Amino acid sequence: MLLKREDVQARTITEDGRIFMEKAARDGLETVWDRYRAQQPQCGFCELGLSCRNCSMGPCRIDPFGEGPQRGVCGADADIIVARNLGRMIAAGSASHSDHGRDLVEVLRKVGEGKAPGYGIRSEEKLRKLASELGVSEDGQSVEALAVAVAEALEEEFGTRKKALAFVGRVPEKRRRIWEKLGITPRGIDRETSEMMHRTHMGVDNDWKSLLLHGLRNALSDGWGGSLIATEVSDILFGIPQPVASEVNLRVLKEDQVNIVLHGHNPIVSEMIFQAAQDPELMGLAEEKGARGINLAGLCCTGNELLMRRGIPMAGNHLMTELALSTGLIDMMLVDYQCIMPALGETARCYHTRMVSTSDKAKYPFMEHREFHPENARDLARDLVREAVENFVRRIPAKVLSPPGAPVKMMAGFSVEAIVSALGGSAGPLIDAIKSGAIQGAVGVVGCNNPKIRHDYGHVTLTTRLIENDVLVVDTGCAAVAHAKAGLKVPEAAEKAGPGLRQVCRALGIPPVLHMGSCVDNVRIFDLAAALAHALGTDISDLPLAAAAPEWYSEKAVSIACYAVASGVYTVLGTPPPIFGSQNIVKLLTEDLEGLLGASFAVEPDPARAADLILERIRAKRAALGL
Amino acid sequence: MLLKREDVQARTITEDGRIFMEKAARDGLETVWDRYRAQQPQCGFCELGLSCRNCSMGPCRIDPFGEGPQRGVCGADADIIVARNLGRMIAAGSASHSDHGRDLVEVLRKVGEGKAPGYGIRSEEKLRKLASELGVSEDGQSVEALAVAVAEALEEEFGTRKKALAFVGRVPEKRRRIWEKLGITPRGIDRETSEMMHRTHMGVDNDWKSLLLHGLRNALSDGWGGSLIATEVSDILFGIPQPVASEVNLRVLKEDQVNIVLHGHNPIVSEMIFQAAQDPELMGLAEEKGARGINLAGLCCTGNELLMRRGIPMAGNHLMTELALSTGLIDMMLVDYQCIMPALGETARCYHTRMVSTSDKAKYPFMEHREFHPENARDLARDLVREAVENFVRRIPAKVLSPPGAPVKMMAGFSVEAIVSALGGSAGPLIDAIKSGAIQGAVGVVGCNNPKIRHDYGHVTLTTRLIENDVLVVDTGCAAVAHAKAGLKVPEAAEKAGPGLRQVCRALGIPPVLHMGSCVDNVRIFDLAAALAHALGTDISDLPLAAAAPEWYSEKAVSIACYAVASGVYTVLGTPPPIFGSQNIVKLLTEDLEGLLGASFAVEPDPARAADLILERIRAKRAALGL
Repeated sequence: MLLKREDVQARTITEDGRIFMEKAARDGLETVWDRYRAQQPQCGFCELGLSCRNCSMGPCRIDPFGEGPQRGVCGADADIIVARNLGRMIAAGSASHSDHGRDLVEVLRKVGEGKAPGYGIRSEEKLRKLASELGVSEDGQSVEALAVAVAEALEEEFGTRKKALAFVGRVPEKRRRIWEKLGITPRGIDRETSEMMHRTHMGVDNDWKSLLLHGLRNALSDGWGGSLIATEVSDILFGIPQPVASEVNLRVLKEDQVNIVLHGHNPIVSEMIFQAAQDPELMGLAEEKGARGINLAGLCCTGNELLMRRGIPMAGNHLMTELALSTGLIDMMLVDYQCIMPALGETARCYHTRMVSTSDKAKYPFMEHREFHPENARDLARDLVREAVENFVRRIPAKVLSPPGAPVKMMAGFSVEAIVSALGGSAGPLIDAIKSGAIQGAVGVVGCNNPKIRHDYGHVTLTTRLIENDVLVVDTGCAAVAHAKAGLKVPEAAEKAGPGLRQVCRALGIPPVLHMGSCVDNVRIFDLAAALAHALGTDISDLPLAAAAPEWYSEKAVSIACYAVASGVYTVLGTPPPIFGSQNIVKLLTEDLEGLLGASFAVEPDPARAADLILERIRAKRAALGL
Repeated sequence: MLLKREDVQARTITEDGRIFMEKAARDGLETVWDRYRAQQPQCGFCELGLSCRNCSMGPCRIDPFGEGPQRGVCGADADIIVARNLGRMIAAGSASHSDHGRDLVEVLRKVGEGKAPGYGIRSEEKLRKLASELGVSEDGQSVEALAVAVAEALEEEFGTRKKALAFVGRVPEKRRRIWEKLGITPRGIDRETSEMMHRTHMGVDNDWKSLLLHGLRNALSDGWGGSLIATEVSDILFGIPQPVASEVNLRVLKEDQVNIVLHGHNPIVSEMIFQAAQDPELMGLAEEKGARGINLAGLCCTGNELLMRRGIPMAGNHLMTELALSTGLIDMMLVDYQCIMPALGETARCYHTRMVSTSDKAKYPFMEHREFHPENARDLARDLVREAVENFVRRIPAKVLSPPGAPVKMMAGFSVEAIVSALGGSAGPLIDAIKSGAIQGAVGVVGCNNPKIRHDYGHVTLTTRLIENDVLVVDTGCAAVAHAKAGLKVPEAAEKAGPGLRQVCRALGIPPVLHMGSCVDNVRIFDLAAALAHALGTDISDLPLAAAAPEWYSEKAVSIACYAVASGVYTVLGTPPPIFGSQNIVKLLTEDLEGLLGASFAVEPDPARAADLILERIRAKRAALGL
């Protein structure tokens, strides 16, 4: 396979990316960039959101130039079709996060019932906090009984019996009133998804505004429901993240160690693997096999979960998952779910790597399926680590390329609790720094990678520009990994910040870009924003905050962006969502939402210009607050 | 607008359809057939299920000829993409029925709480039956308290806390074991929809078999969950249908009366309109305005609900909804949700007709929105009937065309309870007739209209052939309306049946084609099938039964077809579903499912050949039973 040097440069800003893109080409592998190129030109109707296949009178498409049909067979116009399609993207994203949350609730319940050997309650403090928030009485209950009671209360959040999700109570009252007025207070988590699928069925909701409002409600059921449950229960089960040092990029894979890579989103399996990898017997076996140890490394958000709580190093983000395999160094890759390219199984066949899928709801071509349940997880994890160790000797020397040099150092673990603790116990110093202008504002830079954007370029360019302008960046997911690789997640990166932010970072010993976790952990950002708004007696939308997803690709990102805006945070997207077939919808989302929600979307593929939009926003919000 | 005579002939077999298609053309209206023609050629990728836009690395498409790309950007191949798309169709269909069921449960609860004036418990017998089935204690409870308790138990069916839906208990044990073995026993109604949306997100379930199995589970959560709840609670609130005589086709609209047409699917609003239309004051007002009365007529399944319980006549089925407006006779059309073409509002502007939408989750262009809630329904219904009466005088004489002749007579109201009662109190005589061969078998002919199939031709051709061969037909939805218009739903239609069926129909005084209700009421068919299987100590799949949807168009129909097959009933589809891009999936659905479920799909657009497939099936099942 031929790969031109300029192609490689155009595809990624990362050195390990370039090295292994060339290695992959030499090994004859097809990568996500090759498939992206082969798909050109992509369908313009679908890109604009103008194609509908929600019924079998269709498929239909609206001619964006006004020459061909302007209505589908049922009579739906461009506005309705774009809104339906966007609604279903939100539904899928919200459902994904929320189903992830549900799986954690299941483990919490089983822990309480004594049916999940190896798992336990790592943060009793958070369990008790949640119990109190959910109105679960703690009186005389054992921790186990409390875990069951909290799990049951959380299960009710998914159902159909509530008028508002419990965690809506965290939202500033002004915001809650806005939601009430618009009719978008989220009720049941699954209910909102189901209702969105219903509304987008032929002949149900055919008012694009009404559809989009329900989209916001559906997204809020993710942000203040499913994702929040995922994060909180993960903290209960696996501990609240605290600042931790680690490393990042493909160089975290070790030629002389057994490399087990954990990929996906849910920490349920990976935490058991983490425990098993510390087993002296298995470590001894690794030595027997000639390895100097068992090296765990993460990809995507399963990686971020382990990084945040255990300091496990990160091999890379979304677009690095195939290239990680091309090192020939991975003895086993374990996947759970979400963002795991179905191409991986076939890619791994070129090497000795064993690919193992673990979730009952996610199987993949050319992967072994070894299903984890709370009951068998501890034992199965040990089995798999053993098999990984045994696979170490099967590496194919001719196909191995050890990345030269050392990985980049990073810090992670900035949960809200950790940030507050770093600030000395309250958000006061952060508020003071914002008031004084030392910190101009804060921005969540989040989201994925997408081959439509030069890999990591969107994240790093935007974030660098923000911190240079004294804007504190908090991040999650693949964005966080991009920033880490670029060296922005060490205290020394304060040098790259503007003078005010630099000083704050130095005083606290923190980086100017704080890793807050996986993509469900975006809720930590909104928890923090809500806390700041509470402290200032105002609404989230009044604060000098913004969000950006410069390289997003997934439906989950669409849901996140929608709950961000509905929560009052201006959000800039790098890749264009499929809405440009409807000028009405573009105007609503990018302009008119401002009047309804105090926040709106912007779409700006150029990250430098995205930074300018955000800085302008922050200045305006500061001015309105009289800062 | 020019409309050729041969076009009209090709589009429908109905006389009223032809007359008003020409009238609509003269009035300059665009109809569903015109829009269908304008959409030609429809996108082949979408038609084959080969286009994916579940993430923003795409849209992607697989070249069905093998020359272009065979994988999407993520690596998904044709099998994965087709399975994902089909999975989301099932999710949307299941969610639609289930959300409809949820709305009824809400009314049941409010009735119990005394907050739904005008509504009541019409069938205490069914309420008590459901209470017992759901394990709700009746001890000393008032009917109101029992209604609340049953509503709460039903709300739990939507949630995430159950291992199996309560109504799975109705299914023969052999079948339940099959579901258990395949892991497709439905748990929570919304949960299965959410999980399907999750599994079809990029990088989650990438095993097409696993995706399709979950599709069956999702559909079963509709058939033995959401739809079943909709039907049972409608019976509790509005009464169990009993045989009733009525009439059908556009001639049910009366030139000398106020015509109010009810369109959609959920009887909550229409039952209140039915009550209001009987109000002496409003009837007096109608007389004052020069009308001889207030005439209610139905369209689609809201119509079927009223027909089944109140004998309200039917104006038509899906493809007649625009043409009904072109009579110029409709003073008000009230819509709730599902299958209401967004084109209707604009069509109505050509006439005096007032278009009113009533559901918080379904608004439409060019319609007034008057939102019904259990609390205000009685009063709002009166207001609307009054406004319809007042609109009578605004008819535009030049635009009115009264359909010549009389409507077709029909019988409806064949709930399971009514059928058993017609049989003398038990299913015994039906079983005897099947054993003796007087009745060879029974087939559910259900589903929609679709402009891809000549209007009503699929239904009527198939059903005529089946009854000629001594096969009893039960029907629902738009299929039932098609049969009624063709005169198959009167006892005299027994003449068209084969000798065995003819004799049975004559003895019982029933038509050979039994109207079992709206499309959620397909569950009545499966209830009956399960009862027959129980009585014979066997599984549903062993019985000489089949199902057909000759003119389906909607995602709900996809869900219905899937729960039919998963319940053990061979199902023939007239319009091809978007699966033909994957030969593996076509083979699984049309062949291999037989080994797993004892039932499979067939796709056969020619209804005469569909009849032959079904007759062959019935013969084989009879032979296997030794009949």
